[in-house]
Amino acid sequence: MGILPRFADRWLLSRVLESTGSAPVRFLVPGNADVSPSGVVPVATVVIRDRGALTGLLRDPEIGFGDAYMDGQIEVEGDLVGLLEAVYGAMERSSAGGQWLPRLASKWMDVWQYNSRRGSRNNIHRHYDVGNDFYKLWLDERMVYTCAYFPAPSSTLEQAQIAKMDHVCRKLRLQPGERVVEAGSGWGALALHMAREYGVSVKAYNISREQIVYARERARAEGMAGRVEYIEDDYRAISGKFDVFVSVGMLEHVSLDRYHEFSGILHRSIGDTGRGLLHFIGRNQPAVFSRWIRKRIFPGAFAPSLVQSLNVLEPKKYSVLDVENLRMHYAKTLEHWLQRFEKSKHQITAMYDSRFVRAWRLYLAGSLAAFRTGDLQLFQILFTGSKREPIYWTRDPIYAGQESLASPAPSTVENVKWTHAMS
Amino acid sequence: MGILPRFADRWLLSRVLESTGSAPVRFLVPGNADVSPSGVVPVATVVIRDRGALTGLLRDPEIGFGDAYMDGQIEVEGDLVGLLEAVYGAMERSSAGGQWLPRLASKWMDVWQYNSRRGSRNNIHRHYDVGNDFYKLWLDERMVYTCAYFPAPSSTLEQAQIAKMDHVCRKLRLQPGERVVEAGSGWGALALHMAREYGVSVKAYNISREQIVYARERARAEGMAGRVEYIEDDYRAISGKFDVFVSVGMLEHVSLDRYHEFSGILHRSIGDTGRGLLHFIGRNQPAVFSRWIRKRIFPGAFAPSLVQSLNVLEPKKYSVLDVENLRMHYAKTLEHWLQRFEKSKHQITAMYDSRFVRAWRLYLAGSLAAFRTGDLQLFQILFTGSKREPIYWTRDPIYAGQESLASPAPSTVENVKWTHAMS
Repeated sequence: MGILPRFADRWLLSRVLESTGSAPVRFLVPGNADVSPSGVVPVATVVIRDRGALTGLLRDPEIGFGDAYMDGQIEVEGDLVGLLEAVYGAMERSSAGGQWLPRLASKWMDVWQYNSRRGSRNNIHRHYDVGNDFYKLWLDERMVYTCAYFPAPSSTLEQAQIAKMDHVCRKLRLQPGERVVEAGSGWGALALHMAREYGVSVKAYNISREQIVYARERARAEGMAGRVEYIEDDYRAISGKFDVFVSVGMLEHVSLDRYHEFSGILHRSIGDTGRGLLHFIGRNQPAVFSRWIRKRIFPGAFAPSLVQSLNVLEPKKYSVLDVENLRMHYAKTLEHWLQRFEKSKHQITAMYDSRFVRAWRLYLAGSLAAFRTGDLQLFQILFTGSKREPIYWTRDPIYAGQESLASPAPSTVENVKWTHAMS
Repeated sequence: MGILPRFADRWLLSRVLESTGSAPVRFLVPGNADVSPSGVVPVATVVIRDRGALTGLLRDPEIGFGDAYMDGQIEVEGDLVGLLEAVYGAMERSSAGGQWLPRLASKWMDVWQYNSRRGSRNNIHRHYDVGNDFYKLWLDERMVYTCAYFPAPSSTLEQAQIAKMDHVCRKLRLQPGERVVEAGSGWGALALHMAREYGVSVKAYNISREQIVYARERARAEGMAGRVEYIEDDYRAISGKFDVFVSVGMLEHVSLDRYHEFSGILHRSIGDTGRGLLHFIGRNQPAVFSRWIRKRIFPGAFAPSLVQSLNVLEPKKYSVLDVENLRMHYAKTLEHWLQRFEKSKHQITAMYDSRFVRAWRLYLAGSLAAFRTGDLQLFQILFTGSKREPIYWTRDPIYAGQESLASPAPSTVENVKWTHAMS
């Protein structure tokens, strides 16, 4: 190549570096140009093999980077997660994201990926029906595809997913014979766990065909089909009265302007005397997922701030008892998933193609970076109806006897009941 | 009395009963008229000794009841707290409160009791400077005038106030040598406790003259004056950099449209790497205190919904780690206060007058009823700056070793640190 294209590439690379807020990343057009921020050791090198990818990075970095990485026109040498962490951090500091064109594109994406009943069905199908055999390669043996709860950072993923289910059940203080409705039930692990370990009956709603088929099969195999009913329908179709409403990793698939409707469905199900738990990916401040994630991985997804999420609860006067932030537990969960994913990459390439592998790697690595940097949070909100007394006197019963994770919370009278009497 | 006034009184009483949503309460004008809701056993009898009080109840029940009770024109026979609980419950069911005149009066009260710096000084003075000798009669020995934390419902008030202070310190995971700023410090117990038991240094802001004088004296007596500085100034005057921001029972004295300013002060004090805790009376849904409470007891007070309160945290991207609702603990605290108050009523009458005793009895009983019915909630929000890792891996350290309440949280490396490394 001559001097001119080399000069042009170097100029373009400098602009790219600038757009990352001078993150500690080296950008390279092989044999042609090479920029690094001064005074720092780069965490990784972004190798750009294509002029189109380079201009794409500048024109529309959100989509440009992801698509070029997916297509192999961009490669990352070194630590991909570290790179994404650095870019998140640096971009937040420079807080560039005020351009009108990406914002308009983002809004437009919201419209065509809107979670109407039909929209939800398409959106959910695109992600969760990719193939159970694929998810089996990198999830835990129970196929739990939400943030785990690691009793210690060194716990295994299988332990941590059981601990998470117990954590949810203990918080809710499930009692044998109670009726539970679950909105969004994945491959069915939590519903089965609640029924088997806590003696409740569960109606679980889900619109992923692949997941429902798998979950029903497992319930039958375990002889739990009489106590757990998997219903292939939207959460908006929930009918009947329940003691408990639980939703783990589903709120992210509800469009913000549907929270009020969600609130009504919740109230219809458990009224003013029930209780419930919402577990979802959230944020410290309102923001949207990158357009690349919504385009390629999670159409229609949205992670609310705590204030936004409470629009599900306040309109019906639900009383918030407990909010817990498990952000670092999601980072840990993603470390496990990404590790297992990488181990199976040849198998996944054979099942799909290398483009698919690169896209999903970027999604998992990007999510891990986002939880590490605090761009994403994980909230569990425990609440009761406005006419019900709190579930606990103190939280001690949740934390007492953690050893026996799979046994119901002790229902000491001391802890459940308290007197109103004044002498 | 003749037939006509008797008929008129009965009609007026029926209207009063109706305005309570037919709460299970008997209303009586002695020797003249008497109404009770049909089919229920009344929890108490409201004896109305004065025609003015009767029409006052109808014209403006919020102020009318409280003022007439305070003046002795209305007496309650039977269970005062039960009566107030029944009326809260019934009024919520009928949800009458949509009249424009009381709403206008309420807004107008907000204006003249507005918490500007000068307004706050007046408002705080009117409540907290009533006299330390008065508060000593019914608070615990450390003079903690906020919701306690009862390890068990049978704990004593003194135990529960120590446990509350430890609960706050454990959540914050205070470390020796850290700098803490406290916004609103009452009679100084928490600041002293943090410094004495957790080895931190504290700057505590308060605008109640009586409280500051008392707190400084105690710090001197305990030899802690070098580690705890009580500053007689508004929270808006907080200056300096701190590791931890703590505010227990102060947010209720900040006007809602000042939360944004509060947010700025918080951020100025602990930046993006500090942590903090807000403890305050809240609600399930936005609402205001009764005008009587604001007129006679707590000028300028406001209890926010959780969403409203988060307006202190979201603008600066603070990360909410933990929200705990201690509503029933405030009910229990108020039971103790009310009991002690009643025991000292003759002494208090001698110090002030019986009008004062009736007003404060109504305030304590009404607060107790409000926490029992869920009209009021008590939230503790633990948060960190957006650039800081969470304080814990799990909440276990808060609940481990509750026996040794007055010793700092164990700082096992396992629980504080976790690795980001992926193999």
